[in-house]
Amino acid sequence: MSRPVRLLIVEDSEDDALLLVRELRRADYDVTFECVDERQAMSRALASGTWDLILADYSMPHFNGIEAMELLQKSDLDIPFIFVSGAVGENTAVAAMKAGAHDYVMKGNLRRLVPAIERELREAEVRRERKRAEEELRRSREQLRALTAYLQSVREEERVKIAREIHDDLGQSLTALKMDLSWLKGKLSEDRSLQEKAETMMELIDSTIHTVRRIAAEARPAVLDNLGLAAAIEWQAQEFQNRTGICCELKRTLNDLQLDQNISTTFFRIFQETLTNVARHAKATRVEISLEERQSNLILEVKDNGRGITEEQVYGLNSLGILGMRERAFLVSGELQISGVPEKGTTVTVRIPLNRNQTDYDKSAHRG
Amino acid sequence: MSRPVRLLIVEDSEDDALLLVRELRRADYDVTFECVDERQAMSRALASGTWDLILADYSMPHFNGIEAMELLQKSDLDIPFIFVSGAVGENTAVAAMKAGAHDYVMKGNLRRLVPAIERELREAEVRRERKRAEEELRRSREQLRALTAYLQSVREEERVKIAREIHDDLGQSLTALKMDLSWLKGKLSEDRSLQEKAETMMELIDSTIHTVRRIAAEARPAVLDNLGLAAAIEWQAQEFQNRTGICCELKRTLNDLQLDQNISTTFFRIFQETLTNVARHAKATRVEISLEERQSNLILEVKDNGRGITEEQVYGLNSLGILGMRERAFLVSGELQISGVPEKGTTVTVRIPLNRNQTDYDKSAHRG
Repeated sequence: MSRPVRLLIVEDSEDDALLLVRELRRADYDVTFECVDERQAMSRALASGTWDLILADYSMPHFNGIEAMELLQKSDLDIPFIFVSGAVGENTAVAAMKAGAHDYVMKGNLRRLVPAIERELREAEVRRERKRAEEELRRSREQLRALTAYLQSVREEERVKIAREIHDDLGQSLTALKMDLSWLKGKLSEDRSLQEKAETMMELIDSTIHTVRRIAAEARPAVLDNLGLAAAIEWQAQEFQNRTGICCELKRTLNDLQLDQNISTTFFRIFQETLTNVARHAKATRVEISLEERQSNLILEVKDNGRGITEEQVYGLNSLGILGMRERAFLVSGELQISGVPEKGTTVTVRIPLNRNQTDYDKSAHRG
Repeated sequence: MSRPVRLLIVEDSEDDALLLVRELRRADYDVTFECVDERQAMSRALASGTWDLILADYSMPHFNGIEAMELLQKSDLDIPFIFVSGAVGENTAVAAMKAGAHDYVMKGNLRRLVPAIERELREAEVRRERKRAEEELRRSREQLRALTAYLQSVREEERVKIAREIHDDLGQSLTALKMDLSWLKGKLSEDRSLQEKAETMMELIDSTIHTVRRIAAEARPAVLDNLGLAAAIEWQAQEFQNRTGICCELKRTLNDLQLDQNISTTFFRIFQETLTNVARHAKATRVEISLEERQSNLILEVKDNGRGITEEQVYGLNSLGILGMRERAFLVSGELQISGVPEKGTTVTVRIPLNRNQTDYDKSAHRG
């Protein structure tokens, strides 16, 4: 079964060109070829055709083999290039290989031509396959990266929706119930058991309203949407301190931030995840938090005095929480750094650029 | 600046070996080398060293070059292999290249040796770099894949937690309120305005209980955990029909399923997402649903009579919802197929194997 090969020959002698073609046909190649002997013709040939192989003579009246090779190298095409050297001798041919030719054969001894061609065609095919595989892998990675972004955003939307439904629908009903009960209580007779029951009901409604607020705030704190990032961070730090007993100190906060919601959410969720990690893993007794602007970047730093995360824990395959934080920051052109010192604690730093020009890809941050 | 090269020479003549080393040193290589002339020594050398290059003579008293090459090929090492052929002539050398040697040079004319070595070292370096890049890419993709799984599972946990909190904490309080109110209402005087207020409050509590149930069910339907997948699918189909007016027909369902929760959740969430897609994109009036077991696979099929999804929509870069469904199925060793026929509708099929052996990696499915 003959193998097809598309051959570009750079050669001024038609006889020599046909000799090469014959050599390949004898080795059972099904050759289609074009022969060129000057720069423009070769440029055109490179631009218009898809060649498997280039065989080039060294010296021609209007062109030479080194120029031909440079033309190929500039084109960015990955085509095996083999010199077929005649009069010029091996020193020149060796120089051509140093300059990047894949091989050379002497016109007087073509026995190496076919095995050299076979090697180069094989290796070019391997390169092509690797490139295809790499592109497939890259595409798949980009898709998964987009999927993680999508999953994080639908999760956030879901939380916002649930928080609003709980807060608005249930909160409103409970407030109405409370008012109704208050009215009813005023009209009740002085019967002590009735008054006590109404009192119990009032307390139950209050505690239910409290539960509604807590569940809604756990899903999506209203303070983040109403009062902004700095207030939300302060609120979350306070909640965390109350719940865990780990002392939270806010060192610096900016209060007049007007951030895109996407960026606020990113900072806030990374902050929450960081506190969760502190509570779960750090064995810390104290956390220092700062939020400040430096050189058009908004920077959140969370520093604990715990046992210190290791490099392995930061980059390990199981650190999906950290990877998720990193991907979140990446989505708003920011970055996340985590460093630990054994028994001295861990510092998480999130840096997100502000004040950037707004383009289609870059519309996530602006300041008022 | 001399370049280091670790050279394995397969050669019985020390003089010939030193000639090769000298040739490389003249070309400014900093050569470290080992010389072997029989199989076991070469095996040991391959196993213990990291070689940049192998130069092999063809015939030796106890070994030959083709055997040496086969030994290399079996080792799975990617090391350039060049024949240095003496007496045996070019035909044999050509055959060696056909068998996979990267090149050959004749002992009588070593001028091509250095350029051939340079080409092979360069190409080996390119292969190594590509391999590193590919591994990095693969690792990054696997991490992102794990991250999407993690995000989906934490989202599910969050939904379960919210559903339980809402249902249990709020539901319980409201039921208590209802009982209290009922008691109080019985003790109220016959004053019509008091009775009416109590009646209104009763209705408000009922509708709030209803809202609580709806919000909890939207986060995570209790029927899925209490009555299983088939019931949850039936419930969801009914809900969907009520909400959208799109007629849902359950063709077949299995009722005695005992599934791992992971698998139930996967099926159920894919089913929900499929219905969401039908409502958003399909322009369908009717959906047929079947859930059945075939050849140890549980198969869910959702078929609408809408305008039919296109290949491009299934595999497009923006089809993150579908990619998410695919990844979900993949996580429980299942697969998702989507096919559309223009103006005839779309069919989504999820197939997940049951009854598999349980291993650490494979503990997601079992049947009771």
